[in-house]
Amino acid sequence: MSLSLRQVAIDTTDPQRLATWWAEQTGGVVYADIGDFIMVGIGDKETGFTLCFQRVEEPTPGKNRIHLDYTSDDVGAEAARLVAAGATHVADHVNGGFAWTVLADPDGNQFCVLPLE
Amino acid sequence: MSLSLRQVAIDTTDPQRLATWWAEQTGGVVYADIGDFIMVGIGDKETGFTLCFQRVEEPTPGKNRIHLDYTSDDVGAEAARLVAAGATHVADHVNGGFAWTVLADPDGNQFCVLPLE
Repeated sequence: MSLSLRQVAIDTTDPQRLATWWAEQTGGVVYADIGDFIMVGIGDKETGFTLCFQRVEEPTPGKNRIHLDYTSDDVGAEAARLVAAGATHVADHVNGGFAWTVLADPDGNQFCVLPLE
Repeated sequence: MSLSLRQVAIDTTDPQRLATWWAEQTGGVVYADIGDFIMVGIGDKETGFTLCFQRVEEPTPGKNRIHLDYTSDDVGAEAARLVAAGATHVADHVNGGFAWTVLADPDGNQFCVLPLE
């Protein structure tokens, strides 16, 4: 037996729109569209990961209990690019010399952009 | 610039407990414990992924808008093992010949176990 992490699934009322937005921001590829589920592959095929956008009538309101953390080689520039692309700036944080930025995607899902370690 | 998916962060009132549970279930390794943040590495170091369990006073109630999908070579046996380890069975689904199981971890976070494709 085994248990392997395969994808992260994200509820949305409009999977086509949100999947397209995330594919554009990550350089990912929409590789499957099966009605209410749209899969975006991130990274290369062997070692990559999938974001699965699935249609729901109404996403649970409020702060997500689970969120995604991305890294960038230039957090400030990447955050500015994402905001220009439709993301919303939520907060900048510093904790013990480690600085990161919190944004929200067009559906209001908060995510972080962290510096490369 | 670049934007790479690095980890999934999960709110919990008890990160030590939940991180340990998930490390055991996935064969992952707790590789960092920085107070309110505990990181579990899943998969090998080069291509792997991190689950970051972070302390909050009270997780957002209700169904998570984002959840994790795992795969297994034997969904039934793996689901039974997880339930014996403290997970809760939520539902079994079949959609067009594709069958999967929904469980909840000890914090109530729902996740899916899918067959290998």
